[in-house]
Amino acid sequence: MQSDTICALATAPGVGAISVIRLSGPQSFDIVQSVFSKSGLSTKDSHTIHFGTIQQDQAILDEVLVSLFRGPNSYTGEDVIEVSCHGSPYIRQQIIQLFIDKGARMAEAGEFTMRAFLNGKLDLSQAEAVADLIASDSAASHQLAMQQMRGGFSKQIADLRERLIHFASMIELELDFGEEDVEFANRDDLRALLIEVHKLTQKLIDSFKVGNVLKNGVPVVIAGKPNAGKSTLLNQLLNEERAIVSNIAGTTRDVIEDEVAIDGLVFRFIDTAGIRETEDEIEAIGVQRTLEKIQSAAIVLYLFDVNSYSREELIAVRDRLHAQMGDQRVPLILGGNKTDLGNQTQVEQTFEGIDDVIYISAKADHGLDELRKQLVEKVMNETASSQDVVVSNSRHYASLTKANEALLQGLTGLDNGITGDFIAMDIRQALHHLGELTGQITTDDLLGNIFSKFCIGK
Amino acid sequence: MQSDTICALATAPGVGAISVIRLSGPQSFDIVQSVFSKSGLSTKDSHTIHFGTIQQDQAILDEVLVSLFRGPNSYTGEDVIEVSCHGSPYIRQQIIQLFIDKGARMAEAGEFTMRAFLNGKLDLSQAEAVADLIASDSAASHQLAMQQMRGGFSKQIADLRERLIHFASMIELELDFGEEDVEFANRDDLRALLIEVHKLTQKLIDSFKVGNVLKNGVPVVIAGKPNAGKSTLLNQLLNEERAIVSNIAGTTRDVIEDEVAIDGLVFRFIDTAGIRETEDEIEAIGVQRTLEKIQSAAIVLYLFDVNSYSREELIAVRDRLHAQMGDQRVPLILGGNKTDLGNQTQVEQTFEGIDDVIYISAKADHGLDELRKQLVEKVMNETASSQDVVVSNSRHYASLTKANEALLQGLTGLDNGITGDFIAMDIRQALHHLGELTGQITTDDLLGNIFSKFCIGK
Repeated sequence: MQSDTICALATAPGVGAISVIRLSGPQSFDIVQSVFSKSGLSTKDSHTIHFGTIQQDQAILDEVLVSLFRGPNSYTGEDVIEVSCHGSPYIRQQIIQLFIDKGARMAEAGEFTMRAFLNGKLDLSQAEAVADLIASDSAASHQLAMQQMRGGFSKQIADLRERLIHFASMIELELDFGEEDVEFANRDDLRALLIEVHKLTQKLIDSFKVGNVLKNGVPVVIAGKPNAGKSTLLNQLLNEERAIVSNIAGTTRDVIEDEVAIDGLVFRFIDTAGIRETEDEIEAIGVQRTLEKIQSAAIVLYLFDVNSYSREELIAVRDRLHAQMGDQRVPLILGGNKTDLGNQTQVEQTFEGIDDVIYISAKADHGLDELRKQLVEKVMNETASSQDVVVSNSRHYASLTKANEALLQGLTGLDNGITGDFIAMDIRQALHHLGELTGQITTDDLLGNIFSKFCIGK
Repeated sequence: MQSDTICALATAPGVGAISVIRLSGPQSFDIVQSVFSKSGLSTKDSHTIHFGTIQQDQAILDEVLVSLFRGPNSYTGEDVIEVSCHGSPYIRQQIIQLFIDKGARMAEAGEFTMRAFLNGKLDLSQAEAVADLIASDSAASHQLAMQQMRGGFSKQIADLRERLIHFASMIELELDFGEEDVEFANRDDLRALLIEVHKLTQKLIDSFKVGNVLKNGVPVVIAGKPNAGKSTLLNQLLNEERAIVSNIAGTTRDVIEDEVAIDGLVFRFIDTAGIRETEDEIEAIGVQRTLEKIQSAAIVLYLFDVNSYSREELIAVRDRLHAQMGDQRVPLILGGNKTDLGNQTQVEQTFEGIDDVIYISAKADHGLDELRKQLVEKVMNETASSQDVVVSNSRHYASLTKANEALLQGLTGLDNGITGDFIAMDIRQALHHLGELTGQITTDDLLGNIFSKFCIGK
C-alpha cells in the first residue's frame, strides 16, 4: 500500500458539461472532507454519491457530486474519491490545486492503474490492456484490449506457471538429496507439462501476427504497374485527395500510407511506386520500397489494367508476387481496374478461372464495395485460423518467445537425459519469462516503462 | 415532465482516463438495465454506484460504473443515470449508440439543464449561470457565475414579484367594482412597494457595467503619443511578441487586443495608434479608432515619455482625456515611461502632485508590478462601489431595464392620480419583464435561444 494520496483529472481536458477529478490513497476522504460542505463523509457507505459544495476560503468554488469508494473495493484497491465538478478548465484547476494544498500530490501517468496492479487488482497484462482499451479506435482493437483486460491468457498462464513451480521445487529438492539419486519429480509428468505449456505459449506466439495487425491496422500494399490506377483507387478508398493523381506513369514516388476503417477493422493502405524497370534514379528507390513493403504486408492488392493485360501476363505476375513473398505468403487480391474503358464480358472471359480476380473501376467507383468485402474476408480467414486469445502486445510477444525457448530447451534436455540441475535452470528461466508476462516478476524499470505510456488520471 | 429519455456524453471529447455518459428521462433505468450485467438496478437506492459490464450482442463492450439518481433528487429532476466508462472515443460512441438503439435519443445542447429548469430545479437565470460557469476562465467570471447559479438576485426578485402580483390583483378587483369607487389597494403601500422594486432593479442595472466587465474582461485602452512605448508595454504585459515594435513613430496602425489574467481578473489590453495630428490617411483612421476605443474603455492607461513631457503638457493631456470621456468618466492611469533613460529624481519632481502617475520602464521591465497592482485596484474600487449581486448577462440587463421603465411609469402615474386600469397595466408590464428574468414567463423561442448556447451533455 502506498502512503501518499494522488490526485488528477480523470476526464479528457477541454470544455465539457462535467469533469471528474480522482483521488486515491489513505488521505482521500480527509482531503475531500476538509473542503466539502457536508460533514461525515468518513461514515458514509462505499459506492454512494453525495451532493455538496467545494469551499475555498469561505467562498464556494463549485457545486459537485462526490463519489466514495472504500478500499479494497475500488479501482486502485485504496480509498478512492471521484469529484464530479462543472467542466470548466478554470474550476477543475482550482479544485485540483485545492486538493494539493490539502496534502494530495499530482498523479503521474498511469499511477492509478499502477496502484491497482501493486494492490493485486489487476495483473500486469490486464493493466497494460487498460491503456490499449483507452486507445482503441476500432471494433477489432477494442475487442482485443477488452478480452485482455478481462483476463485473457492471464489465468491459463498463471495456472500452468503454478504447476511448473511445483515441478521446479521438486527437482530442486532432488538436488538437495543429490547423492541419493532420488526422483521426486516424475519425468513423464514433467515432460507432459512442459509440452502443455509449450503448446500454449506457441499458440499465443502464433497469434501475435494477427493480434498486431488487428491492433495497429491491417497493412494492405497496393502494387501494380505505373498508371494502373493505384493512386486513384487509394483516393476512392480514403475519400479524399491524398495521393497526387496524374496519368503520367510514375507519378507516385513516395510510399503513401493512410488508414480507413471498414466493418470495424482498420486497414492501412500503402500506395507504392509502380513495379517496372526504371532508369529514373528517384523512382528506382520507390520501386525498391514497393518490393520491401510487400514483405511486410498482411494483404497485397495487385492492380492491373484489364484492357492491357493478357491472361498469361497476369498469371506470370501472380507467380512472381508469390515468389517475392517467399514463405510468408499473404493473401493476394488481383484487382482488374479500368473496367469502365473496355468490354466487360470479353474481359471476364480473358481472366476466367484465375482465383481472386475482382473487377473494379477506381475512377468510376464500380466494384469497390466488393473489394472492401474481399479485404475484410481475407483478414477474417486469417483471424479465424488462430485461436480466441490473441496477443497484441510486443512486450508479451517477447516474453512468450523467451519462455518458449527455455521450455523447448528443457524438453530437449529431458529427452537427452540431462541432469536435474540443468532442467531446473530451464524451468526457472521459463517461469521467469512467464512471470514477466503477468507481472509476478517485475522490475521498477519495467513498471515505469509500461505505466509512463498511460494518460494522467488513469 | 418530458416523456422521452435523452442521452449524451457529459465530459469533454478527446481521450481521457474515463468518460461519463448521461441519461435523463423515464426510461433511463430500463435502457441501462437492458445492457448492464447486473440485474435489479430499479430496486437500488438513489445516489449509489454499481460496477458491471455493458453488453452488446453477448460481447462485453466495457467495464463501467453506473451511478443512479432517482427523480426528483437529480440534476434534471427526472431519473438520471451516469455511466462512467473508459475514455476511448470508440467505446463511448458505441455505448451511446447502444443506448439510442435501446430507446434513448441524443440530447440537444443544454437539454439536461433545460429539463432541470422545466422541472423547477433551477430558475432561468440560474440555468443561464450554469453555461457561464462552464465557460468561466478567471476567478472573477467564475465567482459571478457561481453567485448567480446559487440564487443571486432570483429570490429577492421572486419575493418582490409576489407582492406586486398581490397589488395587481387588488387593483384589477377594483376595476370590477368600477362604479362603486372602492380602493382595495392602498396607494401609499403600492407606492412604497414600487419604489422598493425600482431601487432593486436600478441597483442591478447599475451593476451590469461592472458585471459585464468582470465576465468579459476589463477593457484597458493604452493610449499615448506615437513612440511613447505602447507596443513595448503591451508585449511586456502579454509576455509575447504580439505587437510589431519599432522606434518609428506610428508603427501601430491597427488596434491590437489581447487578454491577460492578473490576480484572477482578465484584462483586455487594447493597443492603439498614437494620438497626434497626422497626414497619413491610414494612420488617421487608427487615431480615430483610438478616440472611439477610449469611449468603451473601463480603464484608460495614458503612456508618456517622462523625458520629453513638461508638467503643463501632462496636465493638459489629462484634462483633454477627461473631456474626451465626457460623463462616463473611467479611471485614468498616467504611465510615465522610459524611466531608464533619464534622471529619476528630476522626473519625479517634475510631475509631483499629479494624481495617478506611476513610473515605469516597459523596455527594462521596471515598475510593471506596481502598474498591475494599480489596474487591479482601479477595478476593485469600481466593483466595491456596486453591491454584492452583480448582473453580467445582457438578457437580464434588458429585462431589468424594461421592468424599471414600467415601474417608473407606474410611479409617475400614481403621483398624477391616474386611474387604476392604467396603473394595473404598468404593474403587469413590470411583472412580465421580471418574470422573463427568472423564467416564470417564457416563450419557446427564448428557451431555445438560451439553451442552444450550452454544450451538449449539460
